Amino acid sequence: METAQQAALQAVELEVAGSGSLTLHKPFEPEDHDLDPSFRLTSFSELKGRGLKVPDEILEKFLDGLSEEGNGAGDGYVPSVPPKVGFGLNCSIAPSRHGTLNIIQTTDFVYPIVDDPYVMGKIACANALSNLYSLGVTECDSIMMLLGISQQMSEKERETVLPIIVRGFKDCAIEAGSQVTGGQTSYNPWLMIGGVATSVCGNQEIVSPDSAAVGDVLVLTKPLGTQVAIHSYQWLENPEKWGRIKLVVTDEDVRRAYLRAMDSMCRLNRVAARLMHKFNAHAATDISGYGLLAHLKNLARNQKNDVSFVVHNLPVISKMAAVAKACGNQFSLMQGLCPETSGGLMICLPREQAAAFCKDIEKQEGYQSWIIGIVEKGNRTARVIDKPRIIEVPSKDREGELW
Amino acid sequence: METAQQAALQAVELEVAGSGSLTLHKPFEPEDHDLDPSFRLTSFSELKGRGLKVPDEILEKFLDGLSEEGNGAGDGYVPSVPPKVGFGLNCSIAPSRHGTLNIIQTTDFVYPIVDDPYVMGKIACANALSNLYSLGVTECDSIMMLLGISQQMSEKERETVLPIIVRGFKDCAIEAGSQVTGGQTSYNPWLMIGGVATSVCGNQEIVSPDSAAVGDVLVLTKPLGTQVAIHSYQWLENPEKWGRIKLVVTDEDVRRAYLRAMDSMCRLNRVAARLMHKFNAHAATDISGYGLLAHLKNLARNQKNDVSFVVHNLPVISKMAAVAKACGNQFSLMQGLCPETSGGLMICLPREQAAAFCKDIEKQEGYQSWIIGIVEKGNRTARVIDKPRIIEVPSKDREGELW
Repeated sequence: METAQQAALQAVELEVAGSGSLTLHKPFEPEDHDLDPSFRLTSFSELKGRGLKVPDEILEKFLDGLSEEGNGAGDGYVPSVPPKVGFGLNCSIAPSRHGTLNIIQTTDFVYPIVDDPYVMGKIACANALSNLYSLGVTECDSIMMLLGISQQMSEKERETVLPIIVRGFKDCAIEAGSQVTGGQTSYNPWLMIGGVATSVCGNQEIVSPDSAAVGDVLVLTKPLGTQVAIHSYQWLENPEKWGRIKLVVTDEDVRRAYLRAMDSMCRLNRVAARLMHKFNAHAATDISGYGLLAHLKNLARNQKNDVSFVVHNLPVISKMAAVAKACGNQFSLMQGLCPETSGGLMICLPREQAAAFCKDIEKQEGYQSWIIGIVEKGNRTARVIDKPRIIEVPSKDREGELW
Repeated sequence: METAQQAALQAVELEVAGSGSLTLHKPFEPEDHDLDPSFRLTSFSELKGRGLKVPDEILEKFLDGLSEEGNGAGDGYVPSVPPKVGFGLNCSIAPSRHGTLNIIQTTDFVYPIVDDPYVMGKIACANALSNLYSLGVTECDSIMMLLGISQQMSEKERETVLPIIVRGFKDCAIEAGSQVTGGQTSYNPWLMIGGVATSVCGNQEIVSPDSAAVGDVLVLTKPLGTQVAIHSYQWLENPEKWGRIKLVVTDEDVRRAYLRAMDSMCRLNRVAARLMHKFNAHAATDISGYGLLAHLKNLARNQKNDVSFVVHNLPVISKMAAVAKACGNQFSLMQGLCPETSGGLMICLPREQAAAFCKDIEKQEGYQSWIIGIVEKGNRTARVIDKPRIIEVPSKDREGELW
């Protein structure tokens, strides 16, 4: 299995796409760096996606103190600047002491989910930036990198893969028009890669995520199913797990889905953020570790109008819905609860603008977007309908390219 | 041993001092929260201080790419704004897109080093803020909290100690005149607590750390030896380790040193930062995980003038130098290489200002500072003299208080 998998990967010049800048990237092969062929970046963590994020109801229990006004010291310190977004969803907005400038910040860290260190570095950076983009903020002024170096790595492994991870992270920051200005490194049992992204910006740079209106439609800019693809790929090397899904997919399906997932996770949401202004977006959220529905519920809670979000369609990387189903629903994909890493933006757009938005983003980036639902009158909740339509998103996404 | 230790702690109303705001804090007892008496926060990490920070020579190997101009993408992205400080020492300075405003940021995360969750939260926040203060920046506009929740914690333990940690962190942010505006939480094998501190500030708020002049003196604002105190305290419960040091210290000595270390690590360097402006400081660094000498060397490398730093005196928490010596120098304390957490600022001051600085800070905060060395003509290096004088810093630091 391993040989087939590697041969397949070697046969492809993996194209890692950033926003508008494509790089031909030779897939990482341990042997090319004198590492043992069995070396896997993903072995330096035991958690991937599901189970990584602390459930909201648990978070609330111990983060309550952070949002209680006057707790303890007697002085309210909760930022009064709208838009206020949940702590668990990690967007920070603070006033600066200078005129009307805001300090918008986001931080996130991930454990290795793919085996290619360059791609992993890019994903970590794109993932950290995503929250800025969900507010329509396109200019990130400064990025810091967080690294937890796994104690379980040999010196050789460390010296081989860490510079590649850092390079991927840095290249992604450059694609974002930003720069890595500092960071922090410590040892940790697991490999950990994270970032802090900061923008100091005026109000006109922000699309306030609280203005969804009845009649809006919901547009999603990246397919779901990255976690399913990542797991399936790892199961190629695990006969027992593979046995559970081999009736519904081939090696080739899984390999293509994995490449599509990597490409998707490396892609910045920056063009989408820019187009939010052009097409008068009313609200948006990025989709990440909590899964589509949890992010939508959080967004719904923060709306000014009496609205609810209803999801009818789930665009999923080709074959991954079948895999998820074959796994007895361990991913909760059909419920909209499957975690994503560096997922797309889910944007509330006026109905008459949605088609133009999708067309524009496809023209600029070559990627499809999908109308996945509608905004109804309601009490600030979100749901996925009982039997949502699955949109199979091809692994081969662009004409004339390998996949 | 355990009973004696706990009884001793119970007998003291631990005073946790922030900058200018003292709080009477009842020491954390696991039983008070229906936790097992053997519960120790510090058991949720295997690394403390030494070994936690990645050595500079290793960092350089894989972070090189970050500071190489034109690496890869062909466009230089290194911030041109002075002062440029080493990546490993985690200070980030970026220009904003608005006039002459700078974005100053710092991030750091630590694993539990003390058993009191409230104190641990304060330490993590004070530690993250410290780099801002070393640049003379006194106003932190926004703090984000990073939490890695140990998977090894039971639900009960988690629900008990995490809210207390968050409260300590938040109280420290309030003491700093700032606010916690967001953050990120994930599971991790170890408990991890960190922060991101950001200030958007004009040039006049910054003391550029590159102007040390021959004849300046070096002033240190907190004693060394926090790591020795922390380890000694844990050895009270480890007969084998305790056996190595019991000839030079008593239980009571260790307990007092531990309390002094906790107090010191919770203390903000904010008043010191304010006084850097008043007394015309030429450069400063905070002292943390790399140890005094490493931080001095980094600062020396960044000087404009041909100077070197020479350290003659080492102020150390009472008895901790003897403990370090009894440990066969595992701490490298006498070489200036013992790691500190949330250590003091080391400030280069004009000779004629140093005494007034020390007097002022003591008047405002009740804490001593020490002249530890001088600035000589040299080639931007730093050293500790062969037999530095140890200044025993009393555990009982203020009149009329318990310790």
